[in-house]
Amino acid sequence: MSQRAIDAMLPYFRDKFFNPSAPYQPAVEIRRDYQLAKSRIAQAIGARGDEIIITAGATESINLALNSFDGHIVTTAIEHHAVLSVAKARNHTLVPVDSRGRVSVEAVAAAITDETTIVSVGLANSEIGTIQPLREIAEIVGRERARRQQVSSKTPIFFHTDASQGAGQLDLSVARLGVDMMTVNASKVYGPKQVGLLWTAPPVKLRPVIVGGGQELGLRSGTENVAGVMGFEAALTEAVSHRKSTVENLTLLRNKLERLLIDAFPDAILSGHRRHRLASHLHISFAGLDAERLVFALETRGVYVATGSACAANKGTRSHVLTAIGLSDAEADGSLRLSLSGDLDEPAIDRAAEIIIDEVRREYERLETL
Amino acid sequence: MSQRAIDAMLPYFRDKFFNPSAPYQPAVEIRRDYQLAKSRIAQAIGARGDEIIITAGATESINLALNSFDGHIVTTAIEHHAVLSVAKARNHTLVPVDSRGRVSVEAVAAAITDETTIVSVGLANSEIGTIQPLREIAEIVGRERARRQQVSSKTPIFFHTDASQGAGQLDLSVARLGVDMMTVNASKVYGPKQVGLLWTAPPVKLRPVIVGGGQELGLRSGTENVAGVMGFEAALTEAVSHRKSTVENLTLLRNKLERLLIDAFPDAILSGHRRHRLASHLHISFAGLDAERLVFALETRGVYVATGSACAANKGTRSHVLTAIGLSDAEADGSLRLSLSGDLDEPAIDRAAEIIIDEVRREYERLETL
Repeated sequence: MSQRAIDAMLPYFRDKFFNPSAPYQPAVEIRRDYQLAKSRIAQAIGARGDEIIITAGATESINLALNSFDGHIVTTAIEHHAVLSVAKARNHTLVPVDSRGRVSVEAVAAAITDETTIVSVGLANSEIGTIQPLREIAEIVGRERARRQQVSSKTPIFFHTDASQGAGQLDLSVARLGVDMMTVNASKVYGPKQVGLLWTAPPVKLRPVIVGGGQELGLRSGTENVAGVMGFEAALTEAVSHRKSTVENLTLLRNKLERLLIDAFPDAILSGHRRHRLASHLHISFAGLDAERLVFALETRGVYVATGSACAANKGTRSHVLTAIGLSDAEADGSLRLSLSGDLDEPAIDRAAEIIIDEVRREYERLETL
Repeated sequence: MSQRAIDAMLPYFRDKFFNPSAPYQPAVEIRRDYQLAKSRIAQAIGARGDEIIITAGATESINLALNSFDGHIVTTAIEHHAVLSVAKARNHTLVPVDSRGRVSVEAVAAAITDETTIVSVGLANSEIGTIQPLREIAEIVGRERARRQQVSSKTPIFFHTDASQGAGQLDLSVARLGVDMMTVNASKVYGPKQVGLLWTAPPVKLRPVIVGGGQELGLRSGTENVAGVMGFEAALTEAVSHRKSTVENLTLLRNKLERLLIDAFPDAILSGHRRHRLASHLHISFAGLDAERLVFALETRGVYVATGSACAANKGTRSHVLTAIGLSDAEADGSLRLSLSGDLDEPAIDRAAEIIIDEVRREYERLETL
């Protein structure tokens, strides 16, 4: 977490711990602080405070968004497990992606039926970093909505995106993205875990998943996570204000790391779109190697890398993203997901590249001697 | 929040912020810390770590417990809004309580039908502090379960309690309480907001409300709130280890405050059970006064009191608890809910009583001159 986020939270753990629904003045002030923080969070995505619902993270936001409407769901084969889990319990279509992880706008259009109520496409993929053409998909959804109005259909259709992955690097203006619902997670912008938001455009009528005291406009009950929202606000506004320099720095470092690794291993496979890709992401596959062995070898030397998304608790299964982009099993099993954080610098990247190259070589040599 | 809880959380905001599902060693250590904290939380209620699901607070736990089973719900008229909201969306019976807020075990037994799958009775009431006879209700549920087995009925019946209110003062051993499911909230034991647990006995099969990455044994998805659970564990174990002295101290102080107020206003009405009542709670009604005016008068003098439960975000409605125990509208509208915290002492109580007596007198005098 960013130090600013932690500092923003601390007062609300002690002196300002009042329940924002309590009637006395100090509690009323907490309520005001909370509402103000929500307004600032909303501003960061070009929205109003009363258009966002605070949840316990992206997974809950996604469940709330997608379960608010019955009917058919259109989504992609490389979405977050939360989207896929909700979709798979329903009538749904998984639109495939190309080898770079981009969804085709035409395929989305073709998947929409008269019963489709939700189109959900993540802004950027967590494993390979590919950024999706949300604006164009929004136009498709808008055209379908207009068509239904013309034929007097009462079935609504809304476009949801999980923007958690891109929040620190991409423009999150809901108007420019063209979405009707958007999920954002605090921990992906160096805010606290288990805090997120769901933004909805005014025509969207949510159906609560969790009922009770009627907090969050009756759409998500439970005593407000005041400290968490303070941390989210601090982290998100910090991320937005540094976005440009963060992306410049990450792009420079990521491209350098990519070049060093590809120079050393020209046969390694880079995944993710060359241009439409998060600056923080580098996905590289060493066919034939065991990526899990690499993880353990690298961690002892201070380089922490992942093999897939860390968002799924059940391990031992191959990444659905890598399968969807067409990697062979041998390529998928030899894949490293390298994520760069904003506090890295060139010497750190040089050192990381050196260690990774060294360990990958050692693994290849070990395999040759078997 | 207790300082111990805050101190327990802080390391997990920075150095130990890894996602517990990530594969590298520091993340694996976080996973171990998290599991160990869950085990200790479970120990505090006499359970095992793999029997508890961590949620974003009591409201979510209650929704998860009650929505896991279709069928008829038996609960009481004075439950938390989360229980009432879920029940009211379903076939349900609200068992009344007596003037002291106690539910009759016979009334619960009479309300159970062949379709009843859940009996949910809170351990103690948040407004008037009355403690319910859970053990006896558990026996009723147990007898009904045995009867169904004899007639080969396949309809399950489980006993759930929201024990959030009593957690710092009462024995929470699930075996001794005799319940099948129990909700506990962290913030009620001076832990963080938006953290809670649902314990279930092994035969209970939960149906997840939030799906995705499969965390919490697949029953509640979302990246784990590691810091929050550390705070919960520290706060709960601290509360349990000081429970006896806390209750002794609170009883002394609450009884003194009660005596001082009743000596000054012999006509005031005390609500809640005389013997089966939380030591922290004092509920007093001054018929004819406007309690909200009192709240504002008292807060300027540093005494923070409530008029009802702070757990409901929608204000302006009369407390369902006070209606259920038979207070008249004039009595309910003149009611103060005084909650004592463990860090108070006798001089503070003397001073609070003096200020409350002074302001109540002033209000009565004002009304006389109208």
